[in-house]
Amino acid sequence: MAKPLRRGNPASKKPARRIIGIDPGSLVTGWGIIESRGSSLVHVGHGTIASVSADRQEPADRLSFIYQGIQAAIKSYRPDGLSLERIFFARNAQSALKLGQARGVALLAAAHAGIPVHEYTASEIKVAVVGYGQATKDQVQKMVTSLLGVGETMASDASDALAAAICHLHRQRFQSLAGMELEWTASLRRRRWSAAAVKRLVGRV
Amino acid sequence: MAKPLRRGNPASKKPARRIIGIDPGSLVTGWGIIESRGSSLVHVGHGTIASVSADRQEPADRLSFIYQGIQAAIKSYRPDGLSLERIFFARNAQSALKLGQARGVALLAAAHAGIPVHEYTASEIKVAVVGYGQATKDQVQKMVTSLLGVGETMASDASDALAAAICHLHRQRFQSLAGMELEWTASLRRRRWSAAAVKRLVGRV
Repeated sequence: MAKPLRRGNPASKKPARRIIGIDPGSLVTGWGIIESRGSSLVHVGHGTIASVSADRQEPADRLSFIYQGIQAAIKSYRPDGLSLERIFFARNAQSALKLGQARGVALLAAAHAGIPVHEYTASEIKVAVVGYGQATKDQVQKMVTSLLGVGETMASDASDALAAAICHLHRQRFQSLAGMELEWTASLRRRRWSAAAVKRLVGRV
Repeated sequence: MAKPLRRGNPASKKPARRIIGIDPGSLVTGWGIIESRGSSLVHVGHGTIASVSADRQEPADRLSFIYQGIQAAIKSYRPDGLSLERIFFARNAQSALKLGQARGVALLAAAHAGIPVHEYTASEIKVAVVGYGQATKDQVQKMVTSLLGVGETMASDASDALAAAICHLHRQRFQSLAGMELEWTASLRRRRWSAAAVKRLVGRV
């Protein structure tokens, strides 16, 4: 696991945004931290929380272990937000219920740390990471390790968590660029540029 | 809501057992506290936690509110255990997921308070309260208020929570009686009573 980096990048005027991605699960919960610096995404750390063990037979103890693990990662790396996959389907009610329980304690850990939660569908995450909404789990993992330049093999729970974090930072950057474009367009129009001239200029940038 | 009672009953040698029942829900979570004193069950308190409001738009904030509510009830009434319904079915994945999230924070509140969790199926709870596993929600509610001598009408979330608590105390008492009978039978048999004589005596009690 990478050492925590100091926050903020003196070379960039924009504040660094650090996001923790979570892939909750009743057996294994993955987490991963990404920081946005200038135009690049930097891998900060990742790991898994294996909640099932002989000395944790009770569901409540397992959930408590997941909560502690996420809380510890948030305390160590101090992310500005938490990103995770929005779930629509499940194999059956039992698996949805167990996933919901693990998800509930992850959301609670975010609320207790006072950081906002961002949710994205599996397809939004795949588009952000691989560029294709129907990408396989394996393609996502390869793209995550390649994007971040992380040579080591990692559990899919951790790479899925990193993918959720990448998705939030990508979309946020896109939204901020789109916002800048809108502002610029409005400002040129106020200066009585014609719509066609604005489009030509903005389109060229 | 009834005031918290002092724990323990000097007239009884057996320690009073106080249980919090929880009926978790993403919109409304019910809770209810019951104490077992001698041969009777005593209503201690009940309430509901309505987690949806205009100033809590985010799922994480709603879960945090449910957690706070359960934690506050546990702190005020200091139960020895938490009882709730074991879920097998759900309308769909979304409702199972949301129920799971609320359930997860309830289980976490129990783990953080260091009290054990007891789970019973809907049918086990209905048998304990109404004596019939297919009882309707309305029958359960009427029986709960009548059993506990609580005149007031209450939200079904609260009566379902009280029903889960009643179920645990009922079953615990049954198990302890069954245990006593087994011990007594063994002791008489050690004193060379015939099986038939033991059966006649134990059967009469």
